[in-house]
Amino acid sequence: MYLTDKKVAVIGAAGAIGSNLVQDLLSTGVANNIAMYDPFEAGLEGAAEEIYHCAYPGANVSWTTDVAKALEGATYIISSGGAPRKEGMTREDLLRGNCEIAKGLGESIRQYAPGAEMVIIIFNPADITGLTTMIYSGLKPGFVTTLAALDSTRLQTRLAQHFGVRQDEVTGCATYGGHGEKMAVFKGGISVQGVRLTDILAGATVGGRGMSAEEWSAIQEHVRSGGARIIKLRGRSSFQSPSHQSVEMLRGRITGGGYPWPCGCYFHDGPYAKVMMAADTQFTADGLVGSVPEGDAEDMAALQDSYEHLCKLRDEVIAAGILPPVDQWSAVNPHL
Amino acid sequence: MYLTDKKVAVIGAAGAIGSNLVQDLLSTGVANNIAMYDPFEAGLEGAAEEIYHCAYPGANVSWTTDVAKALEGATYIISSGGAPRKEGMTREDLLRGNCEIAKGLGESIRQYAPGAEMVIIIFNPADITGLTTMIYSGLKPGFVTTLAALDSTRLQTRLAQHFGVRQDEVTGCATYGGHGEKMAVFKGGISVQGVRLTDILAGATVGGRGMSAEEWSAIQEHVRSGGARIIKLRGRSSFQSPSHQSVEMLRGRITGGGYPWPCGCYFHDGPYAKVMMAADTQFTADGLVGSVPEGDAEDMAALQDSYEHLCKLRDEVIAAGILPPVDQWSAVNPHL
Repeated sequence: MYLTDKKVAVIGAAGAIGSNLVQDLLSTGVANNIAMYDPFEAGLEGAAEEIYHCAYPGANVSWTTDVAKALEGATYIISSGGAPRKEGMTREDLLRGNCEIAKGLGESIRQYAPGAEMVIIIFNPADITGLTTMIYSGLKPGFVTTLAALDSTRLQTRLAQHFGVRQDEVTGCATYGGHGEKMAVFKGGISVQGVRLTDILAGATVGGRGMSAEEWSAIQEHVRSGGARIIKLRGRSSFQSPSHQSVEMLRGRITGGGYPWPCGCYFHDGPYAKVMMAADTQFTADGLVGSVPEGDAEDMAALQDSYEHLCKLRDEVIAAGILPPVDQWSAVNPHL
Repeated sequence: MYLTDKKVAVIGAAGAIGSNLVQDLLSTGVANNIAMYDPFEAGLEGAAEEIYHCAYPGANVSWTTDVAKALEGATYIISSGGAPRKEGMTREDLLRGNCEIAKGLGESIRQYAPGAEMVIIIFNPADITGLTTMIYSGLKPGFVTTLAALDSTRLQTRLAQHFGVRQDEVTGCATYGGHGEKMAVFKGGISVQGVRLTDILAGATVGGRGMSAEEWSAIQEHVRSGGARIIKLRGRSSFQSPSHQSVEMLRGRITGGGYPWPCGCYFHDGPYAKVMMAADTQFTADGLVGSVPEGDAEDMAALQDSYEHLCKLRDEVIAAGILPPVDQWSAVNPHL
């Protein structure tokens, strides 16, 4: 009835994302054995009661304000437990506070859930909080990832709106690199009703509609400000889509594949080494394995820019003393 | 991939319940063809964008601030589009305003969705708003229902907590009559790990735990104040459980049965005539058919009390001129 009965710990479960996550894990049939953790006890109990009142058959849902109890024996961990982004803040504004939280989470995972097989970090700036969690957790890099899909699904959404086609008729949408304002919105793999976007940019049309270079730039910009736009429209940051895509990532891990969007990946070496960034991934028994993005000169330049920005953010966190220098990471996590 | 591709109109889709409903319809695989309606345009667009960013394969989700466009051709309609209950308010405080809204919804359904096969009313006091919607919609009474499950799932939750057993080991929980403070919390059908609650109240135990008459009364009271408790804990009224249970009701309608909780039913005659109230139902091709609850003298007295309260509320709405007198209902809806 559920894909797994292994324990899933949801960190930040009183929040909008976390409480939605628990519901979505159960509604999708992905997992039924869920420990809800949050330091805010009343809200946590209220969120848990809501789930109980859903009366999912076979559900085994507990709640606790003790992170040790939540993590103990967890195979899967999903954390939205950072401070949320407010209107006008960039993701990077959140950098230091949330990296401290990520460090604490990583240390707790190392202590209480060393057998975890997938950790998904949602709280922003997720590339850096995910990296920080991964380093301190002591887990294999492929066992820790970040939610990175939303930029790509926003790109898919916007292209579908532009061409007036069904959303799933737009394929191959992907943004790579960081999840912040410096994300690299690639055009290379995209097709609309089977017509390549690069051909459309060169004059082809779909249902009579084409796309100019200016329109493509505007769409890229729309995607980059996609999170801020949700805050403006709803008066709160997105929570339904981060939750659902995290559940789909977990489904991919459990079933061994089929997750179609970029995920946060750590590259040990190669051109994008020593950061966690959005890339296409394979879901293997050994965790997520990223592949180096490929694109035209323009796309690759944007990715290089994004990578350098991520390195800069990482170095800020190192300078703040939250992460050790890169050459000392392996002393903290032997898998690095 | 989805149980139905018939159109589902979600009324109040910018709200907490409505936006969660759209997600849950898709995540559960119940429906993919969804029209989101709300008068609050920015919030509605934001909620729709969140759903688009979930990137459900095969989804066909639109949003509109035009109720006619949302309802046109809808086979299923779910409305949470009333004013929400605030802390300290009883459900009855909402009576007049939300009955006006229900009347308008009923008239819109009659005009734009006369082929609707199931309308689920969530906004409180749901017994009366559901009745009002049904009368003005012109639909068969069995095609309009209210969400009535949460009192029963709260009862199940609380009993599971009392006995320290898994929630689904508590069976037969049902509250009948009104969804307000006068609900009838029945004991008759309940078993805990197969032991009848009536036997437990007479001295039997489950895992060493029994239950006194005082404890049972306290649990009944806990259930009656279940909605208010969520507001106290979360700072907002429940939205996840109303949403999910509505989706499960729709699943029951589409698959022809298997929904295990009471639903709002209109009784044409018999002891509980001319109101809509929680009862066990059969899901037939002709809509929901309720069965008259059965219980011991105490349970039946509570139900009589609840029924009289519902009649009083109904008569208030008639006195306010929102509903016609009972003997004129058939002039508005020929199925009555």
